[in-house]
Amino acid sequence: MDTETETLMNGQRLKPNQGLPSNSADGAIIYDSSHFQLRSRDRHVSYGSINGAVPLPENNREPEMPGRQSVTFRRLPPEMLTTLSSQFESLDYEPWESRVFKEEYSKKTPSSLTKQGVTRWIVVFFIGVCTALIACAIDICVVEITKLKYGFLKKYIDKCVTENCLYIPYLQWLGISCGFALIASLLVTYGEPVAAGSGIPLVKCYLNGINVHRLHRLKTLFVKAAGVTCSVLGGLAVGKEGPMVHSGAAVAAGLSQGKTTSLGFDFGILKEFRCDQEKRDFVTGGAAAGVAAAFGAPVGGVLFSLEEGSSFWNQNMTWRIFFCSMVSAFTLNVVLSAYHGQIGQLAYDGLLNFGKFPDIPFTLLELPIFIGMGIIGGLIGALFNQMNYHISVFRRRFIFSRWAKVLEVIVVCCVTVTAGFVMIYCVNDCKPLGAKDDIDFPIQMFCEDGQFNAVAAMWFQTPEASVRALFHDQPGTHNPLSVGLFFITYVFLACWTYGLSISSGIFIPALLSGAAWGRLVGLGLYRLTEGAAWADPGKYALIGAASQLGGIARVTLSLAVILIETTGNLSLGLGLMLTLLTAKLVGDCFNAGIYDMNVQLAGLPMLPWSSPPLCHGTQARDIMSKPVVVLKEVERVSTILSVLEETRHQGFPVIFEDRFAGPQGKQTSFGMLRGLILRSQLKILLKEKAFCSSPTGSASQPPVSLETFRMYYPRYPTFQGMHFTEEERSSYLDLRPYLNPTPYTVPLHASLPRTFQLFRALGLRHLIVTDDNNEVVGMITRKTLARYRARICCGTIDFVELPLGGHGVQL
Amino acid sequence: MDTETETLMNGQRLKPNQGLPSNSADGAIIYDSSHFQLRSRDRHVSYGSINGAVPLPENNREPEMPGRQSVTFRRLPPEMLTTLSSQFESLDYEPWESRVFKEEYSKKTPSSLTKQGVTRWIVVFFIGVCTALIACAIDICVVEITKLKYGFLKKYIDKCVTENCLYIPYLQWLGISCGFALIASLLVTYGEPVAAGSGIPLVKCYLNGINVHRLHRLKTLFVKAAGVTCSVLGGLAVGKEGPMVHSGAAVAAGLSQGKTTSLGFDFGILKEFRCDQEKRDFVTGGAAAGVAAAFGAPVGGVLFSLEEGSSFWNQNMTWRIFFCSMVSAFTLNVVLSAYHGQIGQLAYDGLLNFGKFPDIPFTLLELPIFIGMGIIGGLIGALFNQMNYHISVFRRRFIFSRWAKVLEVIVVCCVTVTAGFVMIYCVNDCKPLGAKDDIDFPIQMFCEDGQFNAVAAMWFQTPEASVRALFHDQPGTHNPLSVGLFFITYVFLACWTYGLSISSGIFIPALLSGAAWGRLVGLGLYRLTEGAAWADPGKYALIGAASQLGGIARVTLSLAVILIETTGNLSLGLGLMLTLLTAKLVGDCFNAGIYDMNVQLAGLPMLPWSSPPLCHGTQARDIMSKPVVVLKEVERVSTILSVLEETRHQGFPVIFEDRFAGPQGKQTSFGMLRGLILRSQLKILLKEKAFCSSPTGSASQPPVSLETFRMYYPRYPTFQGMHFTEEERSSYLDLRPYLNPTPYTVPLHASLPRTFQLFRALGLRHLIVTDDNNEVVGMITRKTLARYRARICCGTIDFVELPLGGHGVQL
Repeated sequence: MDTETETLMNGQRLKPNQGLPSNSADGAIIYDSSHFQLRSRDRHVSYGSINGAVPLPENNREPEMPGRQSVTFRRLPPEMLTTLSSQFESLDYEPWESRVFKEEYSKKTPSSLTKQGVTRWIVVFFIGVCTALIACAIDICVVEITKLKYGFLKKYIDKCVTENCLYIPYLQWLGISCGFALIASLLVTYGEPVAAGSGIPLVKCYLNGINVHRLHRLKTLFVKAAGVTCSVLGGLAVGKEGPMVHSGAAVAAGLSQGKTTSLGFDFGILKEFRCDQEKRDFVTGGAAAGVAAAFGAPVGGVLFSLEEGSSFWNQNMTWRIFFCSMVSAFTLNVVLSAYHGQIGQLAYDGLLNFGKFPDIPFTLLELPIFIGMGIIGGLIGALFNQMNYHISVFRRRFIFSRWAKVLEVIVVCCVTVTAGFVMIYCVNDCKPLGAKDDIDFPIQMFCEDGQFNAVAAMWFQTPEASVRALFHDQPGTHNPLSVGLFFITYVFLACWTYGLSISSGIFIPALLSGAAWGRLVGLGLYRLTEGAAWADPGKYALIGAASQLGGIARVTLSLAVILIETTGNLSLGLGLMLTLLTAKLVGDCFNAGIYDMNVQLAGLPMLPWSSPPLCHGTQARDIMSKPVVVLKEVERVSTILSVLEETRHQGFPVIFEDRFAGPQGKQTSFGMLRGLILRSQLKILLKEKAFCSSPTGSASQPPVSLETFRMYYPRYPTFQGMHFTEEERSSYLDLRPYLNPTPYTVPLHASLPRTFQLFRALGLRHLIVTDDNNEVVGMITRKTLARYRARICCGTIDFVELPLGGHGVQL
Repeated sequence: MDTETETLMNGQRLKPNQGLPSNSADGAIIYDSSHFQLRSRDRHVSYGSINGAVPLPENNREPEMPGRQSVTFRRLPPEMLTTLSSQFESLDYEPWESRVFKEEYSKKTPSSLTKQGVTRWIVVFFIGVCTALIACAIDICVVEITKLKYGFLKKYIDKCVTENCLYIPYLQWLGISCGFALIASLLVTYGEPVAAGSGIPLVKCYLNGINVHRLHRLKTLFVKAAGVTCSVLGGLAVGKEGPMVHSGAAVAAGLSQGKTTSLGFDFGILKEFRCDQEKRDFVTGGAAAGVAAAFGAPVGGVLFSLEEGSSFWNQNMTWRIFFCSMVSAFTLNVVLSAYHGQIGQLAYDGLLNFGKFPDIPFTLLELPIFIGMGIIGGLIGALFNQMNYHISVFRRRFIFSRWAKVLEVIVVCCVTVTAGFVMIYCVNDCKPLGAKDDIDFPIQMFCEDGQFNAVAAMWFQTPEASVRALFHDQPGTHNPLSVGLFFITYVFLACWTYGLSISSGIFIPALLSGAAWGRLVGLGLYRLTEGAAWADPGKYALIGAASQLGGIARVTLSLAVILIETTGNLSLGLGLMLTLLTAKLVGDCFNAGIYDMNVQLAGLPMLPWSSPPLCHGTQARDIMSKPVVVLKEVERVSTILSVLEETRHQGFPVIFEDRFAGPQGKQTSFGMLRGLILRSQLKILLKEKAFCSSPTGSASQPPVSLETFRMYYPRYPTFQGMHFTEEERSSYLDLRPYLNPTPYTVPLHASLPRTFQLFRALGLRHLIVTDDNNEVVGMITRKTLARYRARICCGTIDFVELPLGGHGVQL
């Protein structure tokens, strides 16, 4: 983990009477010993307490506010499960308008702008193509190797049923599955832990502005793609669709930068896109392309990116993202069509093809049934999430070493295979061979000749194929008892599996278990109505699948469109929408969606869409962190070095030289605001040794160019390898050309909602709190705002303040 | 027109040596006589000129910026076509966090929040239902009366063809059509001019934050609905779908407020939603419901609202808007199914049902054809928009009296009918009666028995039915020559019609003319390939229709989804998307989409998604308006009265009493910022006579409650009927409980992009420019920012500054 992580704990590593550099007389580091006392008792509490007595700056004329009522945020104990991780930095989504930037930008010509615009479209095109190609590769691998696996097993089962040696195919099944699961687990656990899970929560956080380390590396992409292939081949209750979102995002981040850090290769192109904001827009497109490729749903991809992924949106992005999705769906379609021997046709719509539903109209009378199923889905989803939460908590407590994680995967794999085998062995659900069209490996087991075991058919194929079977099989194909048993087993397995240290998606397991209970409902209706045309079990399986996934992931609009596009059926659209919305509303009464729950468990400081309610009485001065470490416009190199070494802040307000307030007993203001400079920029300036000898700065010296800053992006120099002579240490660094002269500020008495709104809408990283004289009094960052939460439950609101902790990502 | 419109022209109506109230010694009104001189020469120029010498506040330490390069904005002459209208106020999208607000808000309980949330969903439900019912009413009226009309005409034509008296049915047709057109035109011109056109540009502007007067009144809704019915019945080249967006928006605005001003009735409910921000969110939902009802496309509705309408978006809104769209589509479906005799079925999908397309797969080889058609559509669309622009300009110059507008409608109606009649008369395109299924009124004309005139079939039905015919008729049904002739005539008519003083939509005319040329392409391919299965003229008619509408309206994603939902065909989705995106990109090379062009012509100060490029050298101080009229915390009533009477500003910065800077020769700073108060709030305080006798304010007096403020929303008291005694005039008004204590500010040297970004992302109305000491130096509003435009054309950028003009809306 990078040690240069951002933290709000001002001067956390400063100790009152030691380590303060000799240049403290310069006043560059201002601290308040009373604060350090507080901090030494509880290293995570460094804020002025809400409702507590925060001294007002003396020169601040805070208007009297009779009866200012602020809510009380209950400070949670620094437990493992309720902390915000301090390991995550923020991204710079705000354009950095330093003088250097403006000078370079003003040299741009209209034609270079046009060129940049066209390049964006070209990059987006290739993002779509590459994402689709990865999806194709995964799909083809899975399909081909699955055929080999189950073909091999079928041969032995057919042989052993008669020879009474069924333990042999069982052990073979176990061996093959565990082998794949082991590879999947090793890849993730030892290769790239950030590739675990579906990656959707992490991409969501990235788009929200959190810098998740190694999320978009080439290595991560490889581990993700290879890992999910192995997970599916291992027969685990996982899907390969969720991880496609992460893969698409990684492809986008990589392609748009024109370089790869994993291979250490720089193509020297696309340099103008090497900043967080441009990268974010491409990643949004990549995530959409991933969904589009996974489901063959270009519109669904755009909507998923919009509804679930993105935190920032604008109209121009819509069109590019749409194009990206479209190209991705096109490419996948062309390649898969060619693979299946229909070159030039556009017949294969996605990784996941649920088969075309015929037009199934529905009547008004069915609406209550759909709503009812939505309620069931919401309830099961909420229960699923709750169970998964407790499993994750258990995992966090007891399974933290790498080998234990790998072992757990093997155990789950064994349980899955055993459950499948026991069900096939015990449930003797025999159907005639003609009852089902597209069965690849009919297992006879103890059935009579000309029949096959219907339960085995559910297990002896990819989960996608099982979903398709539940959607399209004739009413008589499945025995209600075996479907019910399958549902219970599968839900339990899926819940246990999601969160293991492998690449895995929740889409298919949710759809499959939902399709199972949905089909049960359909079968019930079919029998009740004695085979009425509308009571098609396949239709109800689809509604059930939607309802279950809606209840777990709380996705509505995009999921409805994805299912419409995947099944090629529009007539059921309204029914699906109603079910999904019901499932979401019901589920939301109990807990958060599984992705949000993951984000919360990992302590990721994601900012929601709006601030906690009823908090207008809480002001910026109640939540800001102080004291603030500030720098002067022209600052001594040694001071900068010690500030960088002794704090972990990522941004430093720069103040006017002559209004610099020296250290006093109870310091409340830290000088008049001149601008803001980032740690990364300081490090580059130090690395480039852009020093001058005079404390008034130097205009003659050519400043470090924007080109140089961009060259270092996004991995900035570290202090290792930086050596400074005594002369260099005593020279000065003129920050004026590089600082952002107009950072966003809020007044001391701005309310929490207004502060939040400003921060969230503009995607800020640092928000400086100033008093009435425009002097710096505090600092607000993402973690300041993310820690104040309101939990609405049963008509009461629980206002909580999360402590900061040090744990890393565990998704 | 309300005279209290917002304007930026500071002190426009102040004259240097007269009208200044006696309390000017209080310094409440600060003005700069040099500015008035400037203004008297050119009343529209009141800003510090860009690149000109704006004096810096003396106390401001602007950091030196060597070589600050700012682009030069060419100031356009105040011509009719390039001015921004000063007639439009802005909406208050920013929550007003005054002390009164905070005190009321802090009394809220969690359960009242829950209740409010549930109420929102209920309101949204009724918005969906009501929008759909209006759509049903319009549809049923149009269908029934059209049947009567053409049935009547057919009788006479059939009779007169043999009796050689065809002038009689011609005159009858003319009479009936002109009658309806006259009603449509009178309703709009004399009833409610704001109901003219499709209303989409106006709704878009409203959602952007512009207060368009009377846009959402009950009367407007009635005129819109009745007007569009009459326009369609008048046989004009208009559609009824576009106006549904406006109708939906009006329904949403009305229902969400729980009162109607037109009828003067207040239900006393939903008071918590009576603010601009809440209303906006409902209106976004209403617009989506309108599209959903018009096209039976719930997902398309959401996407249209997102892509074309909305300027602000968040995740919670997505779900409510989705629900609203869904309810609307459901209701329409249920009602229309019942109307067509299929109670309880859900068979009718929208006002516009283009009929189900069978699955038409396409091959890779067709992609170039789709792209080619996209290019053609983009070119035709750009030409159409350009023609329409010139027609609008002509109209603006020469047709401005009401009777002339009505007369023009009649002329267009006569030309339309005559064109139709001449085509039917001259083009003898006879087809056997069995060649076409759903023809209501087959006209024989000069055809032989058992045949009908195919051209007459195109004119003797609603445009929707013609589109359906072009999509679904067998290859041999239409003669290429007559389709070509029809296309040319119809495009010309549509271009002339759009912009008339009637309610009219552009969707159907664009789709119809596009379907015509698309079918021609299809027929050509059909003949070239000698009837290959893929060369289905109906399919190409659909592609052509999409391409044409894409080229005119520049809508991509939502239109693709709407067409998918309307035709019930998913397989062509990718083809449609490709065509639409091409059409948009090609069209954008030449001019703006028709809606944006309308907005520009009307001088509406809409803020685009991003600021003009390359403007980082332009600073807030270059564009801000000054001097600023400020008030003190406790201000004399007479001063407030004269400020309100003599300026037209909508917001006034409030400054600290003791830091108030008196009038000096060259004033640059106007005191230290304390807050902001709105004109509307001042008027309510005056009306409520919330005065106190002491200049230090009064804490004992109970302040005017938020309830009272809300009671006046959105029509604030006027000075008529307000009388003040001499004693009242000399008393004081304590503004402190009512002002917004933390208005957003920017520093003087903030760049234009940063200023724009802050303003746009937060939906601000007033942005105060402060110097380094937090003193007020200038003001930035919507019109300040909207006037700076960059037109990119042929590799060069033309930076222009629009002047402000006084013209009103003309869409």
